[in-house]
Amino acid sequence: MRAYNFCAGPAALPTAVLEKAQAEMLDWQGKGLSIMEMSHRSKDYVAVAEKAEADLRKLMNIPDNYKVLFLQGGASLQFSAIPLNLLGKNSKADYIHTGIWSEKALKEAQRYGDINVIEAGTAVDGKLAIKDQSEWNLSDDAAYVHYADNETIGGIQFANIPETDKPLVADFSSSILSAPLDVSKFGLIYAGAQKNIGPAGLTIVIVREDLLDQSKAEIPSILKYSSQAKNDSMVNTPSTYAWYLSGLVFEWLLEQGGVDAIYKANLAKAELLYNYIDSSDFYANPIAVANRSIMNVPFTLAKPELEKQFLQEAEQNNLLNLAGHRSVGGMRASIYNAVPLEGVQALVNFMDDFAKRNA
Amino acid sequence: MRAYNFCAGPAALPTAVLEKAQAEMLDWQGKGLSIMEMSHRSKDYVAVAEKAEADLRKLMNIPDNYKVLFLQGGASLQFSAIPLNLLGKNSKADYIHTGIWSEKALKEAQRYGDINVIEAGTAVDGKLAIKDQSEWNLSDDAAYVHYADNETIGGIQFANIPETDKPLVADFSSSILSAPLDVSKFGLIYAGAQKNIGPAGLTIVIVREDLLDQSKAEIPSILKYSSQAKNDSMVNTPSTYAWYLSGLVFEWLLEQGGVDAIYKANLAKAELLYNYIDSSDFYANPIAVANRSIMNVPFTLAKPELEKQFLQEAEQNNLLNLAGHRSVGGMRASIYNAVPLEGVQALVNFMDDFAKRNA
Repeated sequence: MRAYNFCAGPAALPTAVLEKAQAEMLDWQGKGLSIMEMSHRSKDYVAVAEKAEADLRKLMNIPDNYKVLFLQGGASLQFSAIPLNLLGKNSKADYIHTGIWSEKALKEAQRYGDINVIEAGTAVDGKLAIKDQSEWNLSDDAAYVHYADNETIGGIQFANIPETDKPLVADFSSSILSAPLDVSKFGLIYAGAQKNIGPAGLTIVIVREDLLDQSKAEIPSILKYSSQAKNDSMVNTPSTYAWYLSGLVFEWLLEQGGVDAIYKANLAKAELLYNYIDSSDFYANPIAVANRSIMNVPFTLAKPELEKQFLQEAEQNNLLNLAGHRSVGGMRASIYNAVPLEGVQALVNFMDDFAKRNA
Repeated sequence: MRAYNFCAGPAALPTAVLEKAQAEMLDWQGKGLSIMEMSHRSKDYVAVAEKAEADLRKLMNIPDNYKVLFLQGGASLQFSAIPLNLLGKNSKADYIHTGIWSEKALKEAQRYGDINVIEAGTAVDGKLAIKDQSEWNLSDDAAYVHYADNETIGGIQFANIPETDKPLVADFSSSILSAPLDVSKFGLIYAGAQKNIGPAGLTIVIVREDLLDQSKAEIPSILKYSSQAKNDSMVNTPSTYAWYLSGLVFEWLLEQGGVDAIYKANLAKAELLYNYIDSSDFYANPIAVANRSIMNVPFTLAKPELEKQFLQEAEQNNLLNLAGHRSVGGMRASIYNAVPLEGVQALVNFMDDFAKRNA
């Protein structure tokens, strides 16, 4: 039996996608071999790769003047690749700091340039929030402005896309494809696959063409956007099976009605969970309403000494991976695209029952 | 029906491994989720990861003073990571050039240091060979000596491990686990997974501990061996599904009797194919006997105009992916660990039939 999986990443994948992958695991479309046993340069595989890109372009409405790269190394390798590729003649960049992942990104960037850190975290009525942009000290001469749309660990998310005339660079690892997005407002969007896209081991980079060739630094060829763009992300062998699985997820998303439809479903899931938490004296979420993540919902128990018991009983109820990140503790329910409303309803039912028994 | 797959990489995987992965795709060991939906830091996943490493250590008899890293980015990213990590105070390294892959490695290294290129290719009686080490001009002050054990495209392989008092660094992408190897002779061994290990998207680095902290360069954290070693290859989310599949391949290899047994099988396969080619007037292999690869067997047809027909008929006979690399043409049969003797016999039978019909 499949459980409801609230893992922050690697995260739940649609059951229908796993079933399809399972069915064709040993013999892809009657060709006598698995898709993972095929050359990345074979006609069959290239068609799979191109279809995945085309479907992602359709889902996100990606303009033609953007390249879509399917890379390896995770968002964390992009933390280096971005400054190496984008700093160019101007070695200054603005980094908005809102949590653990945006901090990792800026620390890595500090190896390569003059990083202006904008401390954007604040508190509103005792809840964590993101400062209004009017309070940020953006540089006049930044090569780009970087932020993390959704902090997976903190569960804090931007309510709007920041306004800037500089290229906007954003980590969408835990929110890509969860809601409509105007890609044309960005210079570069990147995301590790292991939340809303597919399995770990694949990283999507969506980059505006004019930013491809800015670098003056020595960059490992594999990290160079212009080379990867020129070679259709195949400077070397890509993560072929992860790319294929991501393509299946994109097909599944299109079948669900695309990003608009999944966004409606995500809002319903988030509303259900946050409304229950807000109505409860036993649970609390630490984030100001305007900046609550629709993907990662951290919550605490009125009796923290019951956390272990909560997790054990949740597991017995087929509700898995609800522990908060080891750096912050508490609970966290990640309710990515592949987590169905019924899963969130089952979680709320369990939480309510647990609270009543332990009030 | 599963065909015989002679692809150079991504390459054939053992059918038994794919069957196991297929069986547990949706529900790993009754836990209610796929292994690819699990946190890399979960108890269950860490046990899978550690078992894979332990099995690889057993298979290769890796000494305790070596770290085994499970990384992303392919051997090609290691072409940068190696000089970045190992050049240290001494920025000179020796690179032995024997083919396309060793050339890619040295070209990338030239960004970072003073690379002494040793042209080791030669010809013996009209066949390509590797010069005897006595003819190499090794440096006195190299930080390390780099070579590619087996040139996947050329089908040329070292008959012996080079002798040096410097750390020996070797690309074993297409020969790892194919034959017994004395790891203690190396400073660092690396290999892309997609030939003898597992699916693309995983790279194994086996590195002697004293080499971990040599770097004076700014290295992306993800590429830093010391950080990855300290964090059990989990500085960030690794390629979890590829790691799991590699573990299944290691288990399969142990069931086959380990590397000694698979080496015997590989020798039998290579002997069968080379003997047939040598006995034929229709086919030829361009490599001197001492340096013939036991994994990648390039061959030409006496009538090159029949190549397309050869490939088409081979495919009709369920013998797939026999075209040579696009840069060299001709034919190539990659006969990695997962290709059974029956597959090579079927290939020889077909080749013989084709030759008789087209002599």
